[in-house]
Amino acid sequence: MSEPIPTEAQAAETQAVAPAATTTENTAPAPTAEGEAAGPTKGELKRRAKEAEKAKKAAERAAREEEERKKREAKEAQDDAKQNYGKLPLHQSQERNNRKFLRFGDLSESSVGQRVIFRARMHNSRAQGAKIVFLNFRQQTHTLQGVLVVSGEKDENQVSKQMLKFSQLIPSESIVLVEGVIKSAEVKSCTITDYEVGIHKLFTAVEVGELPFSIDDASRPEADFEKAEQDENLQYSRVALPTRLDNRVMDLRTPTNQAIFRIQSAVGQLFREYLNSQGFIEIHSPKLQGAATESGASVFKVQYFNGTAFLAQSPQLAKQMAIAGDMERVYEIGPVFRAEDSNTHRHMTEFMGLDLEMAFEEHYHEVLEVLDEMLKNIFKGLQKGFKHEIEVIKKQFPHEDFLFLDETLKLPFKEGIKMLKEAGAKASDGSELGELDDLSTENEKFLGRLVREKYKTDYFILDKFPLAIRPFYTMPDPVDSTLSNSYDFFMRGEEILSGAQRVHDPSFLIERMKSVGIDPSTMTGYLDAFKLGAPPHAGGGIGLERVVMLFLKLGNIRRASLFPRDPKRLTP
Amino acid sequence: MSEPIPTEAQAAETQAVAPAATTTENTAPAPTAEGEAAGPTKGELKRRAKEAEKAKKAAERAAREEEERKKREAKEAQDDAKQNYGKLPLHQSQERNNRKFLRFGDLSESSVGQRVIFRARMHNSRAQGAKIVFLNFRQQTHTLQGVLVVSGEKDENQVSKQMLKFSQLIPSESIVLVEGVIKSAEVKSCTITDYEVGIHKLFTAVEVGELPFSIDDASRPEADFEKAEQDENLQYSRVALPTRLDNRVMDLRTPTNQAIFRIQSAVGQLFREYLNSQGFIEIHSPKLQGAATESGASVFKVQYFNGTAFLAQSPQLAKQMAIAGDMERVYEIGPVFRAEDSNTHRHMTEFMGLDLEMAFEEHYHEVLEVLDEMLKNIFKGLQKGFKHEIEVIKKQFPHEDFLFLDETLKLPFKEGIKMLKEAGAKASDGSELGELDDLSTENEKFLGRLVREKYKTDYFILDKFPLAIRPFYTMPDPVDSTLSNSYDFFMRGEEILSGAQRVHDPSFLIERMKSVGIDPSTMTGYLDAFKLGAPPHAGGGIGLERVVMLFLKLGNIRRASLFPRDPKRLTP
Repeated sequence: MSEPIPTEAQAAETQAVAPAATTTENTAPAPTAEGEAAGPTKGELKRRAKEAEKAKKAAERAAREEEERKKREAKEAQDDAKQNYGKLPLHQSQERNNRKFLRFGDLSESSVGQRVIFRARMHNSRAQGAKIVFLNFRQQTHTLQGVLVVSGEKDENQVSKQMLKFSQLIPSESIVLVEGVIKSAEVKSCTITDYEVGIHKLFTAVEVGELPFSIDDASRPEADFEKAEQDENLQYSRVALPTRLDNRVMDLRTPTNQAIFRIQSAVGQLFREYLNSQGFIEIHSPKLQGAATESGASVFKVQYFNGTAFLAQSPQLAKQMAIAGDMERVYEIGPVFRAEDSNTHRHMTEFMGLDLEMAFEEHYHEVLEVLDEMLKNIFKGLQKGFKHEIEVIKKQFPHEDFLFLDETLKLPFKEGIKMLKEAGAKASDGSELGELDDLSTENEKFLGRLVREKYKTDYFILDKFPLAIRPFYTMPDPVDSTLSNSYDFFMRGEEILSGAQRVHDPSFLIERMKSVGIDPSTMTGYLDAFKLGAPPHAGGGIGLERVVMLFLKLGNIRRASLFPRDPKRLTP
Repeated sequence: MSEPIPTEAQAAETQAVAPAATTTENTAPAPTAEGEAAGPTKGELKRRAKEAEKAKKAAERAAREEEERKKREAKEAQDDAKQNYGKLPLHQSQERNNRKFLRFGDLSESSVGQRVIFRARMHNSRAQGAKIVFLNFRQQTHTLQGVLVVSGEKDENQVSKQMLKFSQLIPSESIVLVEGVIKSAEVKSCTITDYEVGIHKLFTAVEVGELPFSIDDASRPEADFEKAEQDENLQYSRVALPTRLDNRVMDLRTPTNQAIFRIQSAVGQLFREYLNSQGFIEIHSPKLQGAATESGASVFKVQYFNGTAFLAQSPQLAKQMAIAGDMERVYEIGPVFRAEDSNTHRHMTEFMGLDLEMAFEEHYHEVLEVLDEMLKNIFKGLQKGFKHEIEVIKKQFPHEDFLFLDETLKLPFKEGIKMLKEAGAKASDGSELGELDDLSTENEKFLGRLVREKYKTDYFILDKFPLAIRPFYTMPDPVDSTLSNSYDFFMRGEEILSGAQRVHDPSFLIERMKSVGIDPSTMTGYLDAFKLGAPPHAGGGIGLERVVMLFLKLGNIRRASLFPRDPKRLTP
């Protein structure tokens, strides 16, 4: 039979006893070597008796103290709240009790007095005296105050000093499991200001280590940092965008980001909602292409078994082929890949395209109008259904609400050039603006400001672009062959949608290809589709992240992308 | 002043007159050279007078004939129906009249007597005698009979013989613009059996050339071809799948494919609809990855500027990072890339993943139940809202309706093995089935048949898979460490969803990585997410095309993909 291995608790007990025994030994009287040689005098004996008495008293006192200490320690070790706090074992779905867990967003007057259980992040904590700790818990965009008070009563909800201490040592961002009772309260430090939770049980489900930055610092508006520079009592750490993106999981937890990605999700839903109501169907076209689709320069090459494939730069050709295949009205939400070495605030190498294509009857403006209504449906849907999220975002990125008109401004390209010229705009090289030249990014923004001033809108359409600056598949204007049936849509002076009526006649398409130097034999699959007959059609493509960035004025497209990709970033 | 350049019409007129003048000149008498030398005899003079008389008569007759011919031609050229038919110029959005165009699906009793205009494909035509032609027009899944009758009256709706002839020469699949009046009728050769259109105007908007196959042949069920083999009067051409895919635009026009891609679109909508109602948000994770995400063997490499990127084999890691970033409940619909050289009926190198991930409270079955309800929502939504499409597809791919239970069968993996063993199933190598071995495709299908027989369902869940056959991030069972908290969902005996509770503890995750031979240093971005704290979570991934293929029993996954990609196919 082997020795029983002591349990951890037994081992701890043994340790606790041992030092006490040692202490007692140290205070016991020890015979001295020098007194052994001569016989003791009377005075000496008296002195010794006195000392012995002293030693005895000291020993008695020590024993008494030790007993008291033991009693005190035993009392301390006896923690009647033990079952109410601690670290949970690894969650492996051990059991299921079908308890309903609270989401902070669901709190209401009827919650008051209810006993609740919830999972949340430990946002932060502060002690008030020796018997009260305030703990702020976070769920996505909401924070709720918890109060932990040491209680005298020995009932099942008892809160001990040890539990209080435990609560103070929980690292920020740990995931906790809390049980308590909802009370009415006036709270300033949380987003939920009318209620708090009186804590009865507090467990850590997941503990975290060192954090790259705090959620509070990552959530501050730029103005706060500027204020801190003037005030030495304010110690804020700016969190730079690259640091955020390197630690994107942490960054995503800010209320701002929680709100941004709800908005991003909503844009997609509103896009679909409107198009579904107009008889569109959703398609999924392949991202792996046998040939470079639009231009060889900016396409990513893929090693495809023993050959080469290319990543689609847009679903342009596929969605047109779907139209030739009688799908009539199609849309796609999918990734778009651009191998452009552009390191700007509005370019990524991978972004989400919201694309649509539609056969029309009389005029490409039928499609332009569907695009316009769809976008207005998005703007209205966001302003109506996502007020809370927009307010949360405004705290970090203050901006004026996005302005748009019931009747969208549709400006001919020539008119736009005229407005710019009258306002003194020049081309990038300083020359006069030409009616058939492309707009620089600066002039696009300038035009956005001029339009906002004159028409009170952040959203408008430029129609009838010069043919020469559009892709080969753009249909020329029926009257002026230097113009085309094409359009761009703008938000806050930046292009978010580009589209056109397409050339659906195969021989004219070949003519157009040749005129811009594309060898038709490299696009036979595409041409074959039109040889089989395609109806007149038009469409457009929207950058999802651009819409989100511009609607919320985030200033950088990476803030509107979950895990952005640019020429220098492929992780996380 | 330069000469005016004749218009095309003027040039044609000139040409038409010139040959007639030439003909007259050729028949005029010409003096002969030989008669000039000697004086003519009396007989000779008489003969000459006779010849002259003959020539004169011939000339008169020729002139008369010419005049008649001119009259006849003029009469023929006079076509009072000219304005009612012909070829339209290239559609460049020349004008807009805001006419409402008919969609065949909208026809109802109230349409009878209405004058309509519509765009459609010329499906086919057949003459009945010299004065009537029946033309079948097609819009997606609907065909409508048109009747063209030569009319005596000279009104604006006149139909001439020339117009009739024109209609018969329009190639199948051309896009036509038709005006006419809807009439009640009994029609056998079209999907619309109660109405037909009396044609007043008929124009070709887009004419097509040679077709790779006919829509009728491409729409036939296999049984028709088998019948044709027994009956020499039936001349059908089987259209093989590769031929269809090479000419996918043509193939997509069959009513079957029109219906399949409506169903595919609906699966995505029903997926989102249910998850949105459960508080999920849609995310978009990058397909370009800095490292091979799951296993190096089956990942596509991308040339990324001067470095290398990889195409995501699933959004697995990204969606888990979103959970660590407090997104709580997320889903994604996006392309998934697998560089596997599998040439089977159910593998593609690119397919659409319907992925979701969800933090849970007590037990991973909370997630399993969300997945189950979501799938049942899809099945119910299709059977309720897409009856017409399912019926259209059944004509070409006959199948029994998909069976599923209100309360889904959840079978432990061990139970599945037991059922198989009792039915005499063996492993692929002929050995006994082991409780911890993976199921072969054959045994999966066999189990599907056993389950259908016993439980009357085409849909069930296998739960508690052996740990060893699941990915490293799968959470082990809390009691039996050879098992795991993981599950597969099956439709008609084929796996369509795979999922599990994930390991959310970073040190345990490292342990699991090492145990399967993955170097944790290659996945630091992923591990970092868990070091920052992730709640317990589970999820799953569904193959969109598999769901469509199995629900409709299409037999090959390529039929459920718009432009499928496999090791041998990158186009169109």
